[in-house]
Amino acid sequence: MTESAEILGDLLPWLKGRGVQVFLDAEVAQPLGIEGYPRSEIPDLTEGVVVFGGDGSMLSVARLVCEKGIPILGVNLGGLGFITEVHAAGIYEAMEHVISDRFTVEERLMLTASVYRKKEKVANYTVLNDVVINKGALARIIDLETCVDKAYVTTFKADGLIVSTPTGSTAYSLSAGGPILYPTTGCIVLTPICPHTLTNRPIVLPDKAVVEISLKSVAEDVFLTMDGQVGFSLKQRDRVVVEKSPFKTRLLIPDESDYFKVLRTKLGWGERGRKA
Amino acid sequence: MTESAEILGDLLPWLKGRGVQVFLDAEVAQPLGIEGYPRSEIPDLTEGVVVFGGDGSMLSVARLVCEKGIPILGVNLGGLGFITEVHAAGIYEAMEHVISDRFTVEERLMLTASVYRKKEKVANYTVLNDVVINKGALARIIDLETCVDKAYVTTFKADGLIVSTPTGSTAYSLSAGGPILYPTTGCIVLTPICPHTLTNRPIVLPDKAVVEISLKSVAEDVFLTMDGQVGFSLKQRDRVVVEKSPFKTRLLIPDESDYFKVLRTKLGWGERGRKA
Amino acid sequence: MTESAEILGDLLPWLKGRGVQVFLDAEVAQPLGIEGYPRSEIPDLTEGVVVFGGDGSMLSVARLVCEKGIPILGVNLGGLGFITEVHAAGIYEAMEHVISDRFTVEERLMLTASVYRKKEKVANYTVLNDVVINKGALARIIDLETCVDKAYVTTFKADGLIVSTPTGSTAYSLSAGGPILYPTTGCIVLTPICPHTLTNRPIVLPDKAVVEISLKSVAEDVFLTMDGQVGFSLKQRDRVVVEKSPFKTRLLIPDESDYFKVLRTKLGWGERGRKA
Amino acid sequence: MTESAEILGDLLPWLKGRGVQVFLDAEVAQPLGIEGYPRSEIPDLTEGVVVFGGDGSMLSVARLVCEKGIPILGVNLGGLGFITEVHAAGIYEAMEHVISDRFTVEERLMLTASVYRKKEKVANYTVLNDVVINKGALARIIDLETCVDKAYVTTFKADGLIVSTPTGSTAYSLSAGGPILYPTTGCIVLTPICPHTLTNRPIVLPDKAVVEISLKSVAEDVFLTMDGQVGFSLKQRDRVVVEKSPFKTRLLIPDESDYFKVLRTKLGWGERGRKA
Repeated sequence: MTESAEILGDLLPWLKGRGVQVFLDAEVAQPLGIEGYPRSEIPDLTEGVVVFGGDGSMLSVARLVCEKGIPILGVNLGGLGFITEVHAAGIYEAMEHVISDRFTVEERLMLTASVYRKKEKVANYTVLNDVVINKGALARIIDLETCVDKAYVTTFKADGLIVSTPTGSTAYSLSAGGPILYPTTGCIVLTPICPHTLTNRPIVLPDKAVVEISLKSVAEDVFLTMDGQVGFSLKQRDRVVVEKSPFKTRLLIPDESDYFKVLRTKLGWGERGRKA
Repeated sequence: MTESAEILGDLLPWLKGRGVQVFLDAEVAQPLGIEGYPRSEIPDLTEGVVVFGGDGSMLSVARLVCEKGIPILGVNLGGLGFITEVHAAGIYEAMEHVISDRFTVEERLMLTASVYRKKEKVANYTVLNDVVINKGALARIIDLETCVDKAYVTTFKADGLIVSTPTGSTAYSLSAGGPILYPTTGCIVLTPICPHTLTNRPIVLPDKAVVEISLKSVAEDVFLTMDGQVGFSLKQRDRVVVEKSPFKTRLLIPDESDYFKVLRTKLGWGERGRKA
Repeated sequence: MTESAEILGDLLPWLKGRGVQVFLDAEVAQPLGIEGYPRSEIPDLTEGVVVFGGDGSMLSVARLVCEKGIPILGVNLGGLGFITEVHAAGIYEAMEHVISDRFTVEERLMLTASVYRKKEKVANYTVLNDVVINKGALARIIDLETCVDKAYVTTFKADGLIVSTPTGSTAYSLSAGGPILYPTTGCIVLTPICPHTLTNRPIVLPDKAVVEISLKSVAEDVFLTMDGQVGFSLKQRDRVVVEKSPFKTRLLIPDESDYFKVLRTKLGWGERGRKA
Repeated sequence: MTESAEILGDLLPWLKGRGVQVFLDAEVAQPLGIEGYPRSEIPDLTEGVVVFGGDGSMLSVARLVCEKGIPILGVNLGGLGFITEVHAAGIYEAMEHVISDRFTVEERLMLTASVYRKKEKVANYTVLNDVVINKGALARIIDLETCVDKAYVTTFKADGLIVSTPTGSTAYSLSAGGPILYPTTGCIVLTPICPHTLTNRPIVLPDKAVVEISLKSVAEDVFLTMDGQVGFSLKQRDRVVVEKSPFKTRLLIPDESDYFKVLRTKLGWGERGRKA
């Protein structure tokens, strides 16, 4: 039995006892011998979603439910995540908080990425973490002509380019040299990946900025990747337009949550010198 | 004769001919054999200030005039600056723009730094670029306990800590590894200088954040520096509170100005691959 | 007519007049209406090779001729290169130097990369710049277990890993955050690409170190790339062993050559403050 | 009673019982009611030195004993150090190793720094970690004209410049963005501190390189610092010459020691993914 099945075996009657109606994702329900619902129908059924897993699971659920504005709570089954702040051990306490309305809903910025081929929009995505243009392992360095609000920025010659939300700033962008953006900062960050020009440093922009990236190189093997999970193959001269989404991810944050504590834990910042 | 005196020798009658009344700073006026005004009185006399010099001169004038909200225009006598976008050669054209109201006033965020010793406020400053806490050359690494909006962040063990505005992000913070913040981004950046903990990466915060930094080390030789120009000696247990200033620097930006062009020029970003 | 054909039209009779016998690569010879030699035969025919092109052309010729120990001279047709220090304009002067023995032969470290699948060696390469293990655009972060001289270093979780010579240190490794290694430094550098663990900093090792990298992840789309030019598809559990090659690239360096000048020019280091 | 006194209370009779003659530093001896020897006389008395403390204590002892070539063993009383690999708990085991000759002596490169004022040598130091030229907290950015083996490199405009040995590469240089140099790598690294020019990246040089740094700025408050412990005030036009010392630090390394394990522990490299 999987860990989530084990937890649910106890949690389901506990929730029922408190008058909470639960709709299980079919995939989660199956090991329990229960018939669940197709994942795509879940957003229409519920007022809130609990995700068992890591940050990756949260990202895919965030994209699924954002249009409905349904709040989500992440329960981390492995190590601590950046957006899954509740440990398996703390789930009953967190549920008590949620049922008794002692929680905050934190709205997180999402981005929309649209791909234009010639004049036609050929793809459209919404992300919580980041939109990445990335070359394949064998492709040479790529040229990405970048404009912000129609003003030319530069043509990045690089392995790729990340457009990240504050939520995504502690994910791939951080590994590529980007700064940490506090979650409620109204901005995004443009982080080039291994840029040929060493002075091409990450650029923080207001979240209302419209970023337009054109692939100038012959695209042998270049991809647009959403939240590190969904890919789309780009062709030369494709234009990717990234802007603030009308949707937000609504995170259920238990009241004692503390963003800087997550940073200290996840990034191993020493606690030495702290009085209390 | 200094370069500014030479320029002014021609510019003054040209301005007078257009009905513009000029108040010269005493120091600038002296080589011209004119009696000027004490610099501190200038803000009470004028509707706008033209600064001849580099970014450094702009910073000190910005601090001088910010309370009055007087707009300033920087004329760069050396290389191009980040906030002195007009070259000496372009001064007449820029003046035509200003006189005929073809310009933008760009409001730039300023920060206030207050130093508390025990319960008493012992110093207070306003800056356009950055507030820096820095150890002396012989001092050991210092401990800076840092809180944001009363929440503990970490205790930086470092050579120092920079709190920078978007305007200051291309100055010292960039050399210390910070990102570029677009001027109108409503945020600030906390950049540690040579941190002992390698994961202490720059943190971008909303500009309404109140940053409180306490010096925990025995302060042999630690200073607070404002815009790299004004210093204040810190003692152990001093608390420095940095927050958004009620004042703004109002930059006169000629209409054809382009922030990204300044970045490309100053940071040597290649233009290769750009169509037009 | 290509630029190299134009140059050769004049250079060939000039060389013949000085008693130099020239063997043209077939591809280079063809636009001149001359029958050349297959590239693979060139190393057996000549005492020295002149390469027209950029650093990329030099890399492929270096791999071709290294076993014979033939010196090569790079003539840069575009901008200045790191290892093609002669401009087209300076070719006659450089040739005079070479013919009259006024040059230095600089020996550059090369690396050998061998791929082992189970117990079998399935590939073997020699490079002048770098050996790179890189994930594809859609692959997730990869796990690269790394040992040096049989001692376990760490398991890099990253986009990839670069093993670079001093010559390669100013190429991809520099973009990924690596240091500059002076050409005659007897060492190599291990530079992780966008590592998940932020403290995974570049590691400089003696050039006699044997680096063994095992791909621990399910390899969907992971490649070994030699000098950014030759690729080999890796499978899970493949082991890549990188060590000092018995061969060297022998660069013909005209006497007035200056490595730091190349750095200053290529990296835009300001000359301000230099007396002479 | 201090921790070292407590340890010595037990260790001294244990050593005596094994026929080892011990010479105590006066400062260490005093809390035990024993009369010790002035520290400066210790190198003439012993065949080996045991240092209780952290890396800082090791550095100062290393400078003291290097001319005599006496090996030293570091016993770390706090956390693990980079060069104090024995924990207090492991001291008896380590001593058994040493007494029974089961150890390695690892020779570590040291550097000599000489300061020339006009034509005169005014100071001379030997270091194990690094030679640092650093500006004071209130000084402006300084200009450091740098030559390697008489060849001009560049004039760094920076907060300072670090010349580090492999041993020092995990200390200040790492915080300033430098790479890790494996201890037996025959090279040094030049790491600029917060350079104005963003492309001024760390440069690794052969250890036989002679580095000459001239202070070109008006020196208000610029210091040369040896191993972060000894300071010397520099004046404008002073020249600092850094080169390989004829002396080495001879570290006593217990046989089971493992440099990469130290890196993994000190830098928090995850062990996930390691088989054994």
